[in-house]
Amino acid sequence: MNRLREKAERFRGLHHGGILILPNAWDIPSARLFEDEGFPAVATSSAAMMVSLGYPDGEVIPRAEYFGAVGKISEKLSVPLTVDAAAGFGRTPEEVAQTARGVVGAGAVGLNIEDFDPETKKLFRADDQAEKIRQIRKTGEELGVPLVINARTDALRFASGNDRAKFDEAVSRATLYGDAGADCVYPMGLVEPDSIDAFVKAVRFPTNVMVRKGLPPIKELQQMGVARVSFGPYASYAAIGLLKRISREVRSKGTYTAMVDDAITFDELNALAVRKRPE
Amino acid sequence: MNRLREKAERFRGLHHGGILILPNAWDIPSARLFEDEGFPAVATSSAAMMVSLGYPDGEVIPRAEYFGAVGKISEKLSVPLTVDAAAGFGRTPEEVAQTARGVVGAGAVGLNIEDFDPETKKLFRADDQAEKIRQIRKTGEELGVPLVINARTDALRFASGNDRAKFDEAVSRATLYGDAGADCVYPMGLVEPDSIDAFVKAVRFPTNVMVRKGLPPIKELQQMGVARVSFGPYASYAAIGLLKRISREVRSKGTYTAMVDDAITFDELNALAVRKRPE
Repeated sequence: MNRLREKAERFRGLHHGGILILPNAWDIPSARLFEDEGFPAVATSSAAMMVSLGYPDGEVIPRAEYFGAVGKISEKLSVPLTVDAAAGFGRTPEEVAQTARGVVGAGAVGLNIEDFDPETKKLFRADDQAEKIRQIRKTGEELGVPLVINARTDALRFASGNDRAKFDEAVSRATLYGDAGADCVYPMGLVEPDSIDAFVKAVRFPTNVMVRKGLPPIKELQQMGVARVSFGPYASYAAIGLLKRISREVRSKGTYTAMVDDAITFDELNALAVRKRPE
Repeated sequence: MNRLREKAERFRGLHHGGILILPNAWDIPSARLFEDEGFPAVATSSAAMMVSLGYPDGEVIPRAEYFGAVGKISEKLSVPLTVDAAAGFGRTPEEVAQTARGVVGAGAVGLNIEDFDPETKKLFRADDQAEKIRQIRKTGEELGVPLVINARTDALRFASGNDRAKFDEAVSRATLYGDAGADCVYPMGLVEPDSIDAFVKAVRFPTNVMVRKGLPPIKELQQMGVARVSFGPYASYAAIGLLKRISREVRSKGTYTAMVDDAITFDELNALAVRKRPE
């Protein structure tokens, strides 16, 4: 646990004093590639990882199967790994505590937790969500691994009222979650520069934004005070997009340009199956 | 087994009367994407799939774990699936028969089998390899699934003598394997148009070539009489190559062009977790 505690503290430190660029992986080679490219930590994308395991996004996959796969990634990584834990695979604080134990058991040091039901798309009561966050913090302390909690809110998508009301609800929830012990808050759907700027100014906790079309470049995000930028499922969207282009080129033109240009080699691929540094 | 028998026969038919373009996948979404793009069958790439499961290429992964993962892919596919079975996960005909049963058990209808030891890179005796092929054919018949056998030879890489001697050994082995019951022969390392042309002329069985830099386009391969072109691990090399470009762009320029341009959507990704058509 000393090693995990150290990794958790190192990962927490990355949220302060600079902007953390956090790539989301979905299997061993994608995670190891991001490590090789110099990212100081790696996250999982729940959508990309669940689909690669044959389940739609959400909480359809059994928790044990999901964390089993997370554990196989962490075994190969030297940098800290944080897990997208959907809505916590449970609705009660005790179930969420079990998920937090699963995170640590899988060798990860942080997690994302969402404040809406993936089935109904309804927001949970903010107080209930804050209680889950307190429970995760407590569980991490009991295990000796100070888990880095990224509290996602989908208030910008699912809260009632107009855009202003949704924004205010997102700020209010982020503040409540931060006060409950979240290390970082993650308002899903924040893309426009003005909204990002307003959100970061309104919330006194580190803020995570997700890459998507139209997101301002890293430098501007850093100037606004954003603490963390994550890829979400976008790297997997891009990889599948490339497989589409490869398929269409070979089927319509009979050539292989997209497949062989800028490809890595056999030795590079094979190296992604093993740890970079011994434990 | 009737469904698998029908798929095996359909897959065998694709080796006659046209050129089969066969994409090699490594997980559920890559396999499902290739199916969506209209390929009439899908193969696995051993290197790409083993690495995605955390093992280097070869026969390091336990056979049961490998075929378990193959089975999860076949559960989601409607088109025929063929498996790269390395050197058969065994050296005796009985061990290779067990692998053939594993192929059928995993819902696949064909396999590639190599004629060299992945540890030592030494070619097996040609007669021993032919005996394994006879054993696979027999096992398929016993199970009621006429497995489509793609007999790979690495004589062009590992046979002794000069290039001419290697070529002659590859032709001799391909002929022996075809006579033993292989449906298709697969000389690894055949890229130059003249060599492909000479090989296809010298061997009276369907020939498989692998995509790599410099391979003539499909139309020319078809004119030469090539029966099957497979991607090998190249689509995975390309996908990882894209993850490198994505990583370097965001780290050096702070932008996301390679990640968001030509990416698929959430709904497109999610659809790859489920079967296209019911069983």
